[in-house]
Amino acid sequence: MTDRIWNFSAGPAVLPVEVLEEARDSLLSLGTTGIGIMEHSHRGKAFLKVYAETEALVRQVGGVPDNYKVLFLQGGASLQFSMIPMNFLSAGETADFLVTGSWAEKAMQGAAAYGTPHAACSSKDRNYCYLPKTISYSPQPKYVHYTSNNTIFGTQWRSEPERPAGVPLICDASSDIYSRPIDVSQYGMIYAGAQKNLGPSGVTLVIIREDLVAAGAKDIPVMLQYRTYAENESMYNTPPTFGIFIMGLVLKWIQKQGGLPAMAERNERKAGKLYQYLDQSALFRATADADSRSLMNVTFVTGKDDVDARFCAEATKAGFDGLKGHRSVGGMRASIYNAFPEAGVDALVEFLKAFEAKQ
Amino acid sequence: MTDRIWNFSAGPAVLPVEVLEEARDSLLSLGTTGIGIMEHSHRGKAFLKVYAETEALVRQVGGVPDNYKVLFLQGGASLQFSMIPMNFLSAGETADFLVTGSWAEKAMQGAAAYGTPHAACSSKDRNYCYLPKTISYSPQPKYVHYTSNNTIFGTQWRSEPERPAGVPLICDASSDIYSRPIDVSQYGMIYAGAQKNLGPSGVTLVIIREDLVAAGAKDIPVMLQYRTYAENESMYNTPPTFGIFIMGLVLKWIQKQGGLPAMAERNERKAGKLYQYLDQSALFRATADADSRSLMNVTFVTGKDDVDARFCAEATKAGFDGLKGHRSVGGMRASIYNAFPEAGVDALVEFLKAFEAKQ
Repeated sequence: MTDRIWNFSAGPAVLPVEVLEEARDSLLSLGTTGIGIMEHSHRGKAFLKVYAETEALVRQVGGVPDNYKVLFLQGGASLQFSMIPMNFLSAGETADFLVTGSWAEKAMQGAAAYGTPHAACSSKDRNYCYLPKTISYSPQPKYVHYTSNNTIFGTQWRSEPERPAGVPLICDASSDIYSRPIDVSQYGMIYAGAQKNLGPSGVTLVIIREDLVAAGAKDIPVMLQYRTYAENESMYNTPPTFGIFIMGLVLKWIQKQGGLPAMAERNERKAGKLYQYLDQSALFRATADADSRSLMNVTFVTGKDDVDARFCAEATKAGFDGLKGHRSVGGMRASIYNAFPEAGVDALVEFLKAFEAKQ
Repeated sequence: MTDRIWNFSAGPAVLPVEVLEEARDSLLSLGTTGIGIMEHSHRGKAFLKVYAETEALVRQVGGVPDNYKVLFLQGGASLQFSMIPMNFLSAGETADFLVTGSWAEKAMQGAAAYGTPHAACSSKDRNYCYLPKTISYSPQPKYVHYTSNNTIFGTQWRSEPERPAGVPLICDASSDIYSRPIDVSQYGMIYAGAQKNLGPSGVTLVIIREDLVAAGAKDIPVMLQYRTYAENESMYNTPPTFGIFIMGLVLKWIQKQGGLPAMAERNERKAGKLYQYLDQSALFRATADADSRSLMNVTFVTGKDDVDARFCAEATKAGFDGLKGHRSVGGMRASIYNAFPEAGVDALVEFLKAFEAKQ
């Protein structure tokens, strides 16, 4: 096997080696079934077991209360940006959005076709490098939507934002789901494309309170109603079986590492090492305000485009892949989700030091 | 490795061993990249190459003309049942449906929210065991929709149905796509969930004429407009990268077998062996009318539920999996898509003979 390199991709992203090895061993035959995981009917015993195990792990690892449904959808967070308002918002109604990045913006834009989106706060004035401290909610929002981690801009809410009592909180947690303990009961709905912390692209995890499932619109396409998935164990039609299988393996791996408390500790430590280095560096600096920094995506620059470009080129050559920052921020971004090994962070810090020493 | 068994699943279904082996070898590192196929950024060089190769293979293998777009979506055929009318049908307009099974029915139902669906024919009177010879189109249908192969009922159109000139023909080819040569220029759009003839579940192939992409509605969610995929090489958001990779491997395998003419020949031969046996059997009989029979799904019964059940149980024990028929037809169904080996058909015929001899 080719040696694996340090993969800092923002998503699809690195997966645990143990998960990849078990997946590899399941491709020609899942266990002793004589049929590979991709080839099993979604209605057959073998896959139904995989499905039940994955659902149970989502619940166990995340501490999901019984009055929440666990659903597996397709279409990524981007489809949710329309599905959510389609289900929960009508003409004349307002939904509030915490606008902390491009994805939050897109979520808000998606609501405009169905009701009135209200930007309760925005950090666009400083290119989304911070999380606003003041939030101005509308009088009666139908729900509040926020993005817990802003992949592009390297900011992350450390806890749920304050909001009016009794209003469902809906969270796009695509890039930090299950990276730390979560109090699901604070939410009406949490959703996440799997391709950062949970598995491959092509499967979207939705954790949704039962009363919201019931309250969803009925005059919309059946595939865009949450109840269709809730009433059919996500199998109204053929689900993305392989993605669900991988998600189960990733969750088993998280459990084996010590669950979400262990993930949080490890993620704090990993990001801490990078920020500590960046804060004392004379060459590099982190782009996000200190109190808003993400533990998942560490964005940084030298302030000179040509030095950034040279750094990325040399890093790639040295086996650090995917460090180029998103074009809207420039510079560098180290995405260090759950599965990114601490040894890779240590190696990057050493590489940063060596690069700086050479300048 | 556990020995593989004969997998007659209707979908997700058997894949070629060579494809599974190459997938297995790509999980920890795609080629020499040091990053597994699921872990590569969809914006990175390695995946862009996979994408370009898969798209080129869809075109080469299927003979797709230049004025057609090749798109990779999510949500299966079921989401298409709503996306198609959302894009192409408005209040007051009619679309015509050839109602030859449950999926065709669902496609028609999906259109009712946007315009007026017209059943141009139906074979429901005899539980969809045949394809109607008479079709009564409405005066000015916006498009004609049909299901080229009816997975549940074991019927298949041998060629495109007659229809009014100039009306776009839209085909759900989920269960027979690329099982035989296809004249794409006959169609406005062809779509297929991948999980029968093309790969794993979770990716939907859409081949669509450019004028239809342009004609699609603009006042619908961005993720439900074909142009969003056409204008962004299916990467407006993160596509199902692993599914696209597997589809590419399957297409390469088809090409290596001799392309669609070779597939057609092999599929005729495989199904022919089963139908030949069933037609002379005193115990079993095929359920579909002879002139409507599918080469992909061979449905058959003994006429006695207890014998059917006993047959399925004994077959399962003997290593023939997934032969139980769909509840709406009962009896047995042998799904023998492209990747199902001819040796498995031979083995099933022997098993059928032996079972019959014992009665």
